[in-house]
Amino acid sequence: MDALKELIRDIPDFPRKGIVFKDITPLLQDADGFNTVIRELYKRYKNTPIDYVAGIESRGFIIGAALAYKLRTGFTIIRKKGKLPYKTLSARYDLEYGSDELEMHIDAVGGNDRILLVDDLLATGGTLQAVAKMITDTGACIVDIAVVIELTFLNGREKLHPYPVHSLLQY
Amino acid sequence: MDALKELIRDIPDFPRKGIVFKDITPLLQDADGFNTVIRELYKRYKNTPIDYVAGIESRGFIIGAALAYKLRTGFTIIRKKGKLPYKTLSARYDLEYGSDELEMHIDAVGGNDRILLVDDLLATGGTLQAVAKMITDTGACIVDIAVVIELTFLNGREKLHPYPVHSLLQY
Repeated sequence: MDALKELIRDIPDFPRKGIVFKDITPLLQDADGFNTVIRELYKRYKNTPIDYVAGIESRGFIIGAALAYKLRTGFTIIRKKGKLPYKTLSARYDLEYGSDELEMHIDAVGGNDRILLVDDLLATGGTLQAVAKMITDTGACIVDIAVVIELTFLNGREKLHPYPVHSLLQY
Repeated sequence: MDALKELIRDIPDFPRKGIVFKDITPLLQDADGFNTVIRELYKRYKNTPIDYVAGIESRGFIIGAALAYKLRTGFTIIRKKGKLPYKTLSARYDLEYGSDELEMHIDAVGGNDRILLVDDLLATGGTLQAVAKMITDTGACIVDIAVVIELTFLNGREKLHPYPVHSLLQY
């Protein structure tokens, strides 16, 4: 995993002053690095019954779609408000100032579906918590929340309890 | 391919009156359908030298990332203005009213890189044309532009000339 960390670029003061952004684009651009990320996640879930991988717009689409392909599951998408064309459910979450919303189609998951929820990064966990609740409110079950990077000092994992969390790289 | 078309949902009057939107979410959610899309594209490119698959935010990320994984190439991302944290190049394209911009990192592609440019849909071709030009301006070469759906009545393929275009499904 240390070789993967070398492919992640620190960008100081993005998106605003005082934040060090973890830029995964060099990792995605590296064929071996990107392959390793997907294979490591595949190894963890290959024997787990999963109906859908759910990816959060838009970096979650990158990891989630490749993993869904490899696991041979369906891929279901969680998008920013107003982007999905059909009837939607909504997940509202707090930002530092105000709030924002993500949506999924009403037929995206449901019943007793087993869902692997995927995003690139776990920070405070507010977004993932809201999305996980939107999914479980349909009757579906969150098998795991998988992220590439976990910023452990922000304690997002505790906020997501009781949903289980798996991260490849920790900072 | 007819089986794939059955998984695409027509949404009348989205995003605005008079437009029939082709909703690919049922296709993505179908494990066999999604797998077929990626495998069909993989079969076409598996013997072609490609350095990077480039995907356009955000549905292009879904198809592009899974294909990059399967082809074992790097994956490079084209994002909406202001989203990328590092130094960027920009592609401006016209909308019905006004214009919009997409960006990629300055180290995303270059030199003699061979690029497979991927998006979900080819409509008028304005966006893909601007992105293809941004890529070739770096000295990189567009091996092919691959889309899942081509709206042939909008003649986007002609607009993209001389870039070669491949589509899985035509309407």
